[in-house]
Amino acid sequence: MDRIRAARRVIDPVCLATPLFRSGGLEQGLGCAVSVKLETANPVRSFKARGAEVVASGLAEHGRRALVCASAGNLGQALAWSGRARGIDVTVVASRSAPAAKLERIRALGAGLEVVDGDFEAARERAAALALSDGVRLVEDSLDIETCEGAATIGLELVDAAVPFDAVLIALGGGALATGVGHVVKTLVPAVEVICVQPLGAPAMTRSWRRRSVVTTDSTDTIADGVAGRYPIPAVLDDLLLVADDAVLVEEASIVAGMRMLLDAAGLVVEPSAALGVAAILEDRDRFAGRHVVTIVCGSNVDPDAYRRWVGAVPAPGT
Amino acid sequence: MDRIRAARRVIDPVCLATPLFRSGGLEQGLGCAVSVKLETANPVRSFKARGAEVVASGLAEHGRRALVCASAGNLGQALAWSGRARGIDVTVVASRSAPAAKLERIRALGAGLEVVDGDFEAARERAAALALSDGVRLVEDSLDIETCEGAATIGLELVDAAVPFDAVLIALGGGALATGVGHVVKTLVPAVEVICVQPLGAPAMTRSWRRRSVVTTDSTDTIADGVAGRYPIPAVLDDLLLVADDAVLVEEASIVAGMRMLLDAAGLVVEPSAALGVAAILEDRDRFAGRHVVTIVCGSNVDPDAYRRWVGAVPAPGT
Repeated sequence: MDRIRAARRVIDPVCLATPLFRSGGLEQGLGCAVSVKLETANPVRSFKARGAEVVASGLAEHGRRALVCASAGNLGQALAWSGRARGIDVTVVASRSAPAAKLERIRALGAGLEVVDGDFEAARERAAALALSDGVRLVEDSLDIETCEGAATIGLELVDAAVPFDAVLIALGGGALATGVGHVVKTLVPAVEVICVQPLGAPAMTRSWRRRSVVTTDSTDTIADGVAGRYPIPAVLDDLLLVADDAVLVEEASIVAGMRMLLDAAGLVVEPSAALGVAAILEDRDRFAGRHVVTIVCGSNVDPDAYRRWVGAVPAPGT
Repeated sequence: MDRIRAARRVIDPVCLATPLFRSGGLEQGLGCAVSVKLETANPVRSFKARGAEVVASGLAEHGRRALVCASAGNLGQALAWSGRARGIDVTVVASRSAPAAKLERIRALGAGLEVVDGDFEAARERAAALALSDGVRLVEDSLDIETCEGAATIGLELVDAAVPFDAVLIALGGGALATGVGHVVKTLVPAVEVICVQPLGAPAMTRSWRRRSVVTTDSTDTIADGVAGRYPIPAVLDDLLLVADDAVLVEEASIVAGMRMLLDAAGLVVEPSAALGVAAILEDRDRFAGRHVVTIVCGSNVDPDAYRRWVGAVPAPGT
């Protein structure tokens, strides 16, 4: 907790104190009280900004001038932004299949970008090899504790808010967001339910959590590119087992319905991973009825064409 | 300034400290540094929340239990929300032509809603009559100083931000936002240019500012329903003359282009009034080239059907 509180002091304020607000439109559609924690209103449009700030400020403090990371797209943007501000050379390795919008922004922020065939796990392998050969610090999302501490500052802000809540829905990918926020919530307001949400098409961490040991998958099949890993990190799973009350899997159709609802009811264009929380409510309304649920809208970097394909015209026909 | 600082202490924190962030996407499209002050991420999705909080807390303090206001739609929602929290009966008078989304939310928030034929000015007349006959406090947007003080807290947040800026673009309607923010900016950072933006189709206040005396118009013709007044209030004009460096008028096509750019480049669904600042940059790129401009995104209450009609599918074809 001390390290998480300290993280707040090194993160650029523009990435802190993000809005947390009740959405009447969502509540009408979902049958429960819903507060949105909006992590998209910062220069890199995702919660990864927080962890990247902690990573980059730590490196700068020690006079390190370069880093390499694998990224599904959001961490790369965040590190590119945080590194640029501190004179750190950032190299990002990403899958060729990552959203073009994310890859373009990484380049636009001045980072080196290496695109690899294969998925996110292939990018992780390549980044590790590159770090080794170049003698440069490898930043491993979710494993490197700074990435979790950065995300955990979201938890502090939720707990600091005046209004109590009953559950928090957290997109589950590598686990930095879930373990970070979960740790703070379970430490300070343990009665609040910590529920992780992952797509059925990328269920490795959820299955691992259920079995209490690492389960890998051969492939992923989801539009939620930000959480589509196949190899859970054992140390992160250990942390997740300590703080998550539940981990649920949701259908692709629910993710799309969640994106559409966030657009129509709250005016938010979000990437698929950011709609996982709403998707979880849509799939299990009874569980949440009458409760006050926080959902973390964690990113809005989405290819416009893909968004149109998934969500349709604005608004959804018939609304 | 003391009253504005005091206003910060009575406004529900959920409506304060809204995000202020550089948008790389907008900057690419506009050729200048652009910071977005996002006033839509609160329960009523517009900056009016701030003024309404000041109004309602003042009434509650004096044991007043009712208020009536005319509204183009956003003030009504804001007062309904702030009044509900304090046990104040709120009656809103609005034009039949106000966006259905705004009228529905006013009702959903538990306020009484009276719809009148005619435009916003007709609603103002009816609200004044109603207040008189019922012996209830009339809240007059922009004239009642609390509405300006609430809006002015946005100015404090802009000035408090670490990053200096060269100009602020402010949607100009009744004048609460422009006089409030303008007063703070001119008091604390007078070198910053305060530029008001109004649609060519609703130019009464801008023409009044240019002539230094009230100019009314017979009609309005703009999609920016939030700023479509015809009768500027003399006292507000006096204040505006003290703080505005410029007032510009923009074309409807530029407003739509601004809405589309905010959607495509920043993932924000906004109402037309909130795109006035971007529209002003689009119409005069040379003026802003190389400068750091703040634009206040002041509301996102928009009818989905109308939005689709104006902005087209998401994203704009070809992007």
